[in-house]
Amino acid sequence: MYTTEVVTEMDMANMTNTTYMPRSEEDQNMSWDDATWVMTASFIVFTMQSGFGLLESGCVSLKNEVNIMVKNAVDVILGGLSYWVFGYGLSFGTAYSNILFAAGDFAVSAPEQDMGPLFATYIFQLSFATTATTIVSGAIAERFNFMAYCMFSFINTIVYCVPAGWLWGQHGFLYKMGAIDIAGSAGVHLVGGVSGLVACIMVGPRLGRYDQGHEQFPMGSPTNAMLGMFMLWWGWLGFNCGSSFGVRGHKWKYAARSAVTTINASLGGGLFGMTYSLATTKKLMVGDLINSILGGLVAVTAGCALYRSWEAVVVGIIGGMLAVITMPLVDRLHIDDPVGAVSVHGVSGLWGVLAIGLFVDADSLEKITNGRAGLFKGGGWHLLGVQALTCACIISWSAIVTFVLLFCINKLKPIRMTTHEELLGADLVEHGIRHPGLGLSRTVSALRRHSEVDERLKELDLPPEVGSNLGHMTLLQKLRQRISHPRGSVAEASFVSSARRSAFGSRTEPIVPVTVTEDSNKTSKPPKKNTSHVAWINFDEHLDNMHP
Amino acid sequence: MYTTEVVTEMDMANMTNTTYMPRSEEDQNMSWDDATWVMTASFIVFTMQSGFGLLESGCVSLKNEVNIMVKNAVDVILGGLSYWVFGYGLSFGTAYSNILFAAGDFAVSAPEQDMGPLFATYIFQLSFATTATTIVSGAIAERFNFMAYCMFSFINTIVYCVPAGWLWGQHGFLYKMGAIDIAGSAGVHLVGGVSGLVACIMVGPRLGRYDQGHEQFPMGSPTNAMLGMFMLWWGWLGFNCGSSFGVRGHKWKYAARSAVTTINASLGGGLFGMTYSLATTKKLMVGDLINSILGGLVAVTAGCALYRSWEAVVVGIIGGMLAVITMPLVDRLHIDDPVGAVSVHGVSGLWGVLAIGLFVDADSLEKITNGRAGLFKGGGWHLLGVQALTCACIISWSAIVTFVLLFCINKLKPIRMTTHEELLGADLVEHGIRHPGLGLSRTVSALRRHSEVDERLKELDLPPEVGSNLGHMTLLQKLRQRISHPRGSVAEASFVSSARRSAFGSRTEPIVPVTVTEDSNKTSKPPKKNTSHVAWINFDEHLDNMHP
Amino acid sequence: MYTTEVVTEMDMANMTNTTYMPRSEEDQNMSWDDATWVMTASFIVFTMQSGFGLLESGCVSLKNEVNIMVKNAVDVILGGLSYWVFGYGLSFGTAYSNILFAAGDFAVSAPEQDMGPLFATYIFQLSFATTATTIVSGAIAERFNFMAYCMFSFINTIVYCVPAGWLWGQHGFLYKMGAIDIAGSAGVHLVGGVSGLVACIMVGPRLGRYDQGHEQFPMGSPTNAMLGMFMLWWGWLGFNCGSSFGVRGHKWKYAARSAVTTINASLGGGLFGMTYSLATTKKLMVGDLINSILGGLVAVTAGCALYRSWEAVVVGIIGGMLAVITMPLVDRLHIDDPVGAVSVHGVSGLWGVLAIGLFVDADSLEKITNGRAGLFKGGGWHLLGVQALTCACIISWSAIVTFVLLFCINKLKPIRMTTHEELLGADLVEHGIRHPGLGLSRTVSALRRHSEVDERLKELDLPPEVGSNLGHMTLLQKLRQRISHPRGSVAEASFVSSARRSAFGSRTEPIVPVTVTEDSNKTSKPPKKNTSHVAWINFDEHLDNMHP
Repeated sequence: MYTTEVVTEMDMANMTNTTYMPRSEEDQNMSWDDATWVMTASFIVFTMQSGFGLLESGCVSLKNEVNIMVKNAVDVILGGLSYWVFGYGLSFGTAYSNILFAAGDFAVSAPEQDMGPLFATYIFQLSFATTATTIVSGAIAERFNFMAYCMFSFINTIVYCVPAGWLWGQHGFLYKMGAIDIAGSAGVHLVGGVSGLVACIMVGPRLGRYDQGHEQFPMGSPTNAMLGMFMLWWGWLGFNCGSSFGVRGHKWKYAARSAVTTINASLGGGLFGMTYSLATTKKLMVGDLINSILGGLVAVTAGCALYRSWEAVVVGIIGGMLAVITMPLVDRLHIDDPVGAVSVHGVSGLWGVLAIGLFVDADSLEKITNGRAGLFKGGGWHLLGVQALTCACIISWSAIVTFVLLFCINKLKPIRMTTHEELLGADLVEHGIRHPGLGLSRTVSALRRHSEVDERLKELDLPPEVGSNLGHMTLLQKLRQRISHPRGSVAEASFVSSARRSAFGSRTEPIVPVTVTEDSNKTSKPPKKNTSHVAWINFDEHLDNMHP
Repeated sequence: MYTTEVVTEMDMANMTNTTYMPRSEEDQNMSWDDATWVMTASFIVFTMQSGFGLLESGCVSLKNEVNIMVKNAVDVILGGLSYWVFGYGLSFGTAYSNILFAAGDFAVSAPEQDMGPLFATYIFQLSFATTATTIVSGAIAERFNFMAYCMFSFINTIVYCVPAGWLWGQHGFLYKMGAIDIAGSAGVHLVGGVSGLVACIMVGPRLGRYDQGHEQFPMGSPTNAMLGMFMLWWGWLGFNCGSSFGVRGHKWKYAARSAVTTINASLGGGLFGMTYSLATTKKLMVGDLINSILGGLVAVTAGCALYRSWEAVVVGIIGGMLAVITMPLVDRLHIDDPVGAVSVHGVSGLWGVLAIGLFVDADSLEKITNGRAGLFKGGGWHLLGVQALTCACIISWSAIVTFVLLFCINKLKPIRMTTHEELLGADLVEHGIRHPGLGLSRTVSALRRHSEVDERLKELDLPPEVGSNLGHMTLLQKLRQRISHPRGSVAEASFVSSARRSAFGSRTEPIVPVTVTEDSNKTSKPPKKNTSHVAWINFDEHLDNMHP
Repeated sequence: MYTTEVVTEMDMANMTNTTYMPRSEEDQNMSWDDATWVMTASFIVFTMQSGFGLLESGCVSLKNEVNIMVKNAVDVILGGLSYWVFGYGLSFGTAYSNILFAAGDFAVSAPEQDMGPLFATYIFQLSFATTATTIVSGAIAERFNFMAYCMFSFINTIVYCVPAGWLWGQHGFLYKMGAIDIAGSAGVHLVGGVSGLVACIMVGPRLGRYDQGHEQFPMGSPTNAMLGMFMLWWGWLGFNCGSSFGVRGHKWKYAARSAVTTINASLGGGLFGMTYSLATTKKLMVGDLINSILGGLVAVTAGCALYRSWEAVVVGIIGGMLAVITMPLVDRLHIDDPVGAVSVHGVSGLWGVLAIGLFVDADSLEKITNGRAGLFKGGGWHLLGVQALTCACIISWSAIVTFVLLFCINKLKPIRMTTHEELLGADLVEHGIRHPGLGLSRTVSALRRHSEVDERLKELDLPPEVGSNLGHMTLLQKLRQRISHPRGSVAEASFVSSARRSAFGSRTEPIVPVTVTEDSNKTSKPPKKNTSHVAWINFDEHLDNMHP
């Protein structure tokens, strides 16, 4: 162990209390040990995009379940591009900085000698940035115009990257004041939650949301939502443990503690959610379970490397409680947040930042707290004050900037879907996806009664339902018609009408785009080219000779 | 390479044959290299919870698919808490120990200087513990009372943690005897399989399970089951390779061998499953494929770091064979195990433990086998005897303790769902989730004929179906009714009756909770508050002015 | 930091330009740092199997969604076995080699002293090999005979492993010429794409595919497709970054750069796909989004460790463009590739290999390019020529060998499903899985009109629909019949006929295999054994006494 100890001793001189700083002078000392930890963690954090997408998709109604997955992909694409172009530079640029923002390192690039630490840092920060921007997508689900969302997705980076600089850049005023937010209860979750709240209020509730009271609507796919939650749960371990930003010296010890506190907080949160849900409804509602676990995770994120294991349970219980209890309150204010992002990320995030000011001990190894301790540990009010100020600054920034951005975007492209688009669902109008069994025909016929809408609906060609095989439909139709069914037109007419009927809501048969003419023999177009493999016309003779 | 060699040499002195021991004196020598491997592996092992959940959910009927996901989450929450509170301490506590159990380290905690090795060890052991307890959830799916399961989930830790101490704690009598179980064929899978078997027998088969013979019921979602299996497959690499419990010295070489043997065993198992299924049914049944792959994985787990690559294939083939062949036998005994947990984890796990006594060479680098070899390698009967004794002890313990626990729980809360709950499905009665297309109305009307049940069903308010958007339903209803359809009451009456009809089994339209009155204009409550965004009443004029 | 520097200096002597070589003399110097990186990456790469399976499953019609998941599992099982038996040896065997292939290391095995580097290398190469073979499964989805696919899956390894030797084995002629393909744009994706193209042409388009034009058929599950794409996206980070094949010395810096270029290329590709889809269809089509992101990823794979970050964006944009734009062209040639594998892996892969000859700088640290630079960087035409030759060799090899293999397999087992099998769907005929809501009854009745097919259909026993609980069905039937409904036979007759009707396409009620007789009391077999838990006959009395 001698050699190892020597390295540790030497590293320590360079490493004190700059643990969570990217690309400072000390960072050049990042070794491959640190880099592999940071990169592995960032790969794990990226999987949280799958989790967010699936959770949000599972929470909304079926007619929007694909749209929300697409929005999560767009978050990565456009949010990732803007983070590369200007976001990282505004957070951690080295060319210029004042206490409010930095500049430089735009369109992040590096000479080969320096690329190791910079790129490892960048990819980790990127994985955080895309997570932050994706929180909003859940809050405004089912009624936010897709084009407007794309614009927001690109520019939303600015909401995240400036406070990230305050917290984690050496220039930042919160950093200089000693604010502690290890993995982003403030920098990621509070930012995302407040941003989601403002967006929610501005876009308004879903059509008819509160006409029947404040009960949550049924989820679209509770199984998908649970799977998404699981993915987030395990991804969170990379999120929090990776925030040790290395493993050498004592950093790995903090990473190990982060793993335990992260899990413990989720257990505490989940325990509260279970108890609360069973006590109030005699059922374990899936939404309560998911949001209480996530609330616990959000809450522990700020101080994951610092809490004792039992403190993490307490922080998690309170985080889960706040998430679950504030959700109906948000609904009472007619703020419609389909996935509970405001409560889970905003309220529990707020608690997570403040909890540091209460519970944290002054750590001895890396001096992350700069020697300060929380109120309950004899550190007095100072740290709590700093943490409260952090919250105030972050909330103000996120709220104001989100409002300004959405206000401007709304001028370019109204952020609210039109009524008929919302009723038809974003999957259909934005992505040409038609789910079976959703009563689309009923919706369409109701809308057609309005001349203005009828005009617009003419542009809408109803695509075939997902899951169907159009080729087989046509083929089967022909089989019935030509080969063994000489009483031709009658049978076909009924088949066509049944297929046609199916276009309006029945699940049994996918729609075939047939053109009904007087002469039913012309119903379907003949194949343009008689490919060697589809010799259906001689079906009986060639049944088994259809191979190449 | 000099420096590295020196480290290796020096480490070796401290490292002999204590590889799989957590928190011994040697453990203080855990470096960040070891810790990152162990922690990364534990993060991967946690993803197996998603895999187990999805596999089990895909295997059961749709009306229970969410419940099983929830049970997996509860396993982590309650099983995790009990492992933190007392489980880890019973396995590896340092305050007191005899050959049967240890004590100390309850509510695991550590001072900063020691937290690295302890927390890294703990998080890894925790990921194993939650996996072990989750195996049972599949075996008792579709009829185990949820509250009783929660109790079991918390206390089940005791079934796992005591034999874990026997096998992997330095105090354990099996450890002292030289029993080998590297990643838990005995400690995780045999325990889980036996526990599942006892629970299965005690709770009884699903209603009507064997009325039509012994054929497996159709899966609820074979695609989900396959995805869950895939997740387990890759997660198993973390499970087995992480059990090297470090990488320094020669440990990484064992980890690398574990990766190859793990994959090879799964290939062997899968090969058998494919062949068997095609030979007996002319089809490749998904259940056989899944369980043979998992059977191979379970079997190799005990000796993953020790087998030659071809031996792993053989062990896997036999493991897969045992899993697939014993499944129908279990059914013949009217032991109803919907996911095959008894065969996959129990029988293949048993084989995995015994296989070590047959195939294993005395390894030269870390001396994991203490210089002993298996029967086929000239080591005589000793190792096989030890392994057989291990199986006997573990089976006895798991069976007895599971029986006692469930017997006691059954006194507090009957472990079997009531008949009407089981017929309605746990998703509905425990989580308020109503799946479309399951003939719920038929079930309800059949049950209502029984006065006693009818009484209970009055408490059951049928929630709206998943995937529907209630707000849109009400809005569309109003649109039809008030604006463009002056012939009012008739049209509405038919709409209401159709919506009402849909409450009983049709997929086309989600239920709207309307109150039908004589005067159809009062059918739906007027919106409590005319929000600015839902100006549907002036739909024609304001269609595009609905944005904030 | 002194110690670290020394190691680095010393390593460098051994490490020049052999970065991507497995098991050479230098490889013995693989340390645990390198091995953990390589193994962690391979575990991540394996998760791409889940991604491929889910993406392909989501793209095809519902009646084939499970089959494609099974094919992906078979790829791992049979492809993995053949890679272990002979594939790795043909690529990297050490017993014999010429410039075309190597030999030795068949059924990969190693003595304990050497097992570390060999097994770590093998597991990484295996994860690549199974990925390559799985690409084909998407291209030939929905009509390739399953048994024939199994044969192909086993032998397909040869298509991959020989060019892998050319590119990455020290014996390979492309390696000797200085061809650069860091993570497999040529060796994995171009091979897979060309192989898929040939297989596509040979098996022919799906029945009726081009009867209605060239529009893509609707996806089976866009949500699953998106989730699969997400899994591939994050898995790709392991794929490309792991190809640094270690972290010591400067390797980790290349890994870090690979992470950034990989993400940046995906952002570029996705940006193009979004723009193109919105510009041409006013919608963001999910297929375009997925394939443009993947096209960007495929394109950057060859040079991931070498591009500057902005170059990666450009390479990704062009890669995404080629994937999205060539897809309809492939369809115009009546080459039916349901998932776009030919465009995404073939065309974008081709571009990725050539892009190196244009953009790459001579890297200074590891000299991966052997001091050569691309055309745009003043390196002249040499490197571009080598890369073009690489493409020509790989395309020729893959096309010819795939043709020969499939031609031979077709003699043993026709590769095309028979017409009626294809119409019924592979899930039903190969795996006994019956999806609800697919109009199966309509298909069956149409097919039954053909005497030849009718004969075959007699062998086909329609299984119950997925998701149903057969036991409950029988039980409910009995409840209705015997206990509270004395008007017996009439009610039951209608119930039976309705259940029977449901066997042919309705979703509302799963089929119950009842035998209707004159005497309706005999409709269902009495339970063979009156288990204590299923005392339905005394339902009223025993409702709550049904627990063990």
